[in-house]
Amino acid sequence: MICSSSLRMANVPPTSSLADTGSGTRNSASPPAISETSDEPQPQVRKIKTSPQLNRWSRARSIRSGMKLDRSSLSFSAETRTKSSSPVRSEEEIELPMSPKSGSRSNSSDDEKEVNRGKSVFMVSDGTGWTAEHAVNAALGQFDYCLVDRVCPVNTHLFSGIDGVDQLMEIIKQAAKEGAMVVYTLAEPSMAEFAKQACQHWGVASSDILGPITEAIAGHLGVSPSGLSRWAPERQKSPLSEEYFRRIEAIEFTIKQDDGALPRNLHMADIILTGVSRSGKTPLSIYLAQKGYKVANVPIVMNVDLPKTLFEVNPEKVFALTINPVVLQSIRRARAKTLGFNGELKTNYSDMDYVKEELVYAGKIFAQNPVWPVIEVTSKAIEETAVIVLRLYHDRKNRCSMPRISKRY
Amino acid sequence: MICSSSLRMANVPPTSSLADTGSGTRNSASPPAISETSDEPQPQVRKIKTSPQLNRWSRARSIRSGMKLDRSSLSFSAETRTKSSSPVRSEEEIELPMSPKSGSRSNSSDDEKEVNRGKSVFMVSDGTGWTAEHAVNAALGQFDYCLVDRVCPVNTHLFSGIDGVDQLMEIIKQAAKEGAMVVYTLAEPSMAEFAKQACQHWGVASSDILGPITEAIAGHLGVSPSGLSRWAPERQKSPLSEEYFRRIEAIEFTIKQDDGALPRNLHMADIILTGVSRSGKTPLSIYLAQKGYKVANVPIVMNVDLPKTLFEVNPEKVFALTINPVVLQSIRRARAKTLGFNGELKTNYSDMDYVKEELVYAGKIFAQNPVWPVIEVTSKAIEETAVIVLRLYHDRKNRCSMPRISKRY
Repeated sequence: MICSSSLRMANVPPTSSLADTGSGTRNSASPPAISETSDEPQPQVRKIKTSPQLNRWSRARSIRSGMKLDRSSLSFSAETRTKSSSPVRSEEEIELPMSPKSGSRSNSSDDEKEVNRGKSVFMVSDGTGWTAEHAVNAALGQFDYCLVDRVCPVNTHLFSGIDGVDQLMEIIKQAAKEGAMVVYTLAEPSMAEFAKQACQHWGVASSDILGPITEAIAGHLGVSPSGLSRWAPERQKSPLSEEYFRRIEAIEFTIKQDDGALPRNLHMADIILTGVSRSGKTPLSIYLAQKGYKVANVPIVMNVDLPKTLFEVNPEKVFALTINPVVLQSIRRARAKTLGFNGELKTNYSDMDYVKEELVYAGKIFAQNPVWPVIEVTSKAIEETAVIVLRLYHDRKNRCSMPRISKRY
Repeated sequence: MICSSSLRMANVPPTSSLADTGSGTRNSASPPAISETSDEPQPQVRKIKTSPQLNRWSRARSIRSGMKLDRSSLSFSAETRTKSSSPVRSEEEIELPMSPKSGSRSNSSDDEKEVNRGKSVFMVSDGTGWTAEHAVNAALGQFDYCLVDRVCPVNTHLFSGIDGVDQLMEIIKQAAKEGAMVVYTLAEPSMAEFAKQACQHWGVASSDILGPITEAIAGHLGVSPSGLSRWAPERQKSPLSEEYFRRIEAIEFTIKQDDGALPRNLHMADIILTGVSRSGKTPLSIYLAQKGYKVANVPIVMNVDLPKTLFEVNPEKVFALTINPVVLQSIRRARAKTLGFNGELKTNYSDMDYVKEELVYAGKIFAQNPVWPVIEVTSKAIEETAVIVLRLYHDRKNRCSMPRISKRY
């Protein structure tokens, strides 16, 4: 559980009285984040007076339980904005590094603990934060070599719906305390600028994800960005757009078609996936459905006839999946374990001979249908296979010289 | 259909002969992209000799149909790298702007056409390209105000698996021809540097999505990025990790539980969504499942008893969805139309009285279960509601002072 020290207060009943302004949440602004694995003796909790904002958050949390929720409970802009001009009395009461040099790594034993706990990345967004998460996730892929063996574990913390400078300041202060870096996507230029300045001031490494690309696109389009966050009431929304309905329809279609159900509807699918059990058809179908494609998947089981409709549809929309037998066996074994049949039922399901034979059987069907591309999914993430399918799908549809996936906004 | 002019060759059978090096694909490198809506007279196609790379792509496309596919067909690194030192004879044969001033907007009538067609954004990645797509999509949100009314339509084109400088160069040249900007995520520093330089050289606006964040994280972690693309064989992969299985299990669980199926399994869900029909439970469930959460959803239908198990599980994992009756009615009407029942069956399903009454009925159930947060989904995108659910979910689990969604890498 990665959290500030207030997690130790999990058993303390939340105080919902608005009159409570401190005692119940005294430890909210806390020493460096505690890692999931920290069963070791707790470091002494420093007594720190918290800011009104932190108390407000804690209160908000407890109040929210069981309350009607809407955007206003996610962000406190109105409240924090009107109060931002009030004297931030408690600011000096929080122990914070005054410069990068005197940061949270104040002594060597702290340093060691930090190494064990891993480094933290705070992702701050005035919207959902998924863009920041996606970008950080991709960038962390560049450090796989040390993440995989937990040489340099990383904890990410996503703060979404942050649209008040007070909240933003508290998070950056907390980042300074935890020795975290801050990555942000803030649409309002003044908020982004504040984040940059505050990170510099508190000695926190930072990176602006949205600013540079927005600026580049603005220059390209020759128009100015709105500077409005996702939740801003002024921002034009079109959730009931064609695109929205198409996506939902695709998801629902795909769920209904899963695992060979309703073969009579195959002609309605944009994409049809086929392959043996555990070749990854279902998660791939769902991933593609999220992108707005209606996907059907048809399992290949040895000596079980495939639905006739599979051979009646346009073969250009059928994609065959294949996988290495050793890997498939291990996935099937894990699957058999999860389903609870260890040897009794479907004994041959994960037997190497059966696995190989079934892959050969599938391979013969694929050979009889040469238009179906056969995609090797071994050691590919779902999104990797998805891009291969979509590239081919768009390429076949559009016959471009350079394979590309195009979209209109 | 956004594509280069070769789309007009859609009916020309792809040539799979390796001996064919030009005639069939002579127009591949083509004038500015053609918009989806272009039924107007075609602008005269300029005769342009294409580079060997373009021919290779076109060949590869035709060869790929029906061929066993793996990573090597997505990217041509080995081939292009060994050939990159060979004289790029055809470079001068392609008409290209030599400076930003003499770019693709060479005359006013071209300008007009470009405005009508919309501006293009090329997204180039040595991986899947989803990170670039996600970032561009988020940034385009800043231009909603002019996108919505199609004042400044934008076409995005995703080029994935690009890991050779020759391919990269061709795409940037094409961007210059189409007046597109280039956004890239290239792990290998030399490739990223090449993209930057080439864009400068050809007068193409560009933005590096991955570089700055990777650099910032490297500084924070104190280790160097691998510089390896997603497809690089040297890159450590762990597709069969716990995380991978968890995600797949979550997706499969969620599909099986959809629409109130298997209520006996509700205790196994991480998150349970409840609400009336068309309040968005299914797409939200699937979105959360993709993030690794096992989600069950339980529909509320007036005067139909909810499963007993819903009241036996930990109420902290139940989330109620509500929606504005007018919006719900319009969604239900669209739904009824899709399902093909116009007035005969379920007549009251989209009647305003019934819609309102059912929402009141649901509201009463929510009131009887005060721990269930009631989330207002009207005019929220799926990912917006998802972040509200997940914030509460993590907050309730971890009791942090500042609501955050944490993850360990």
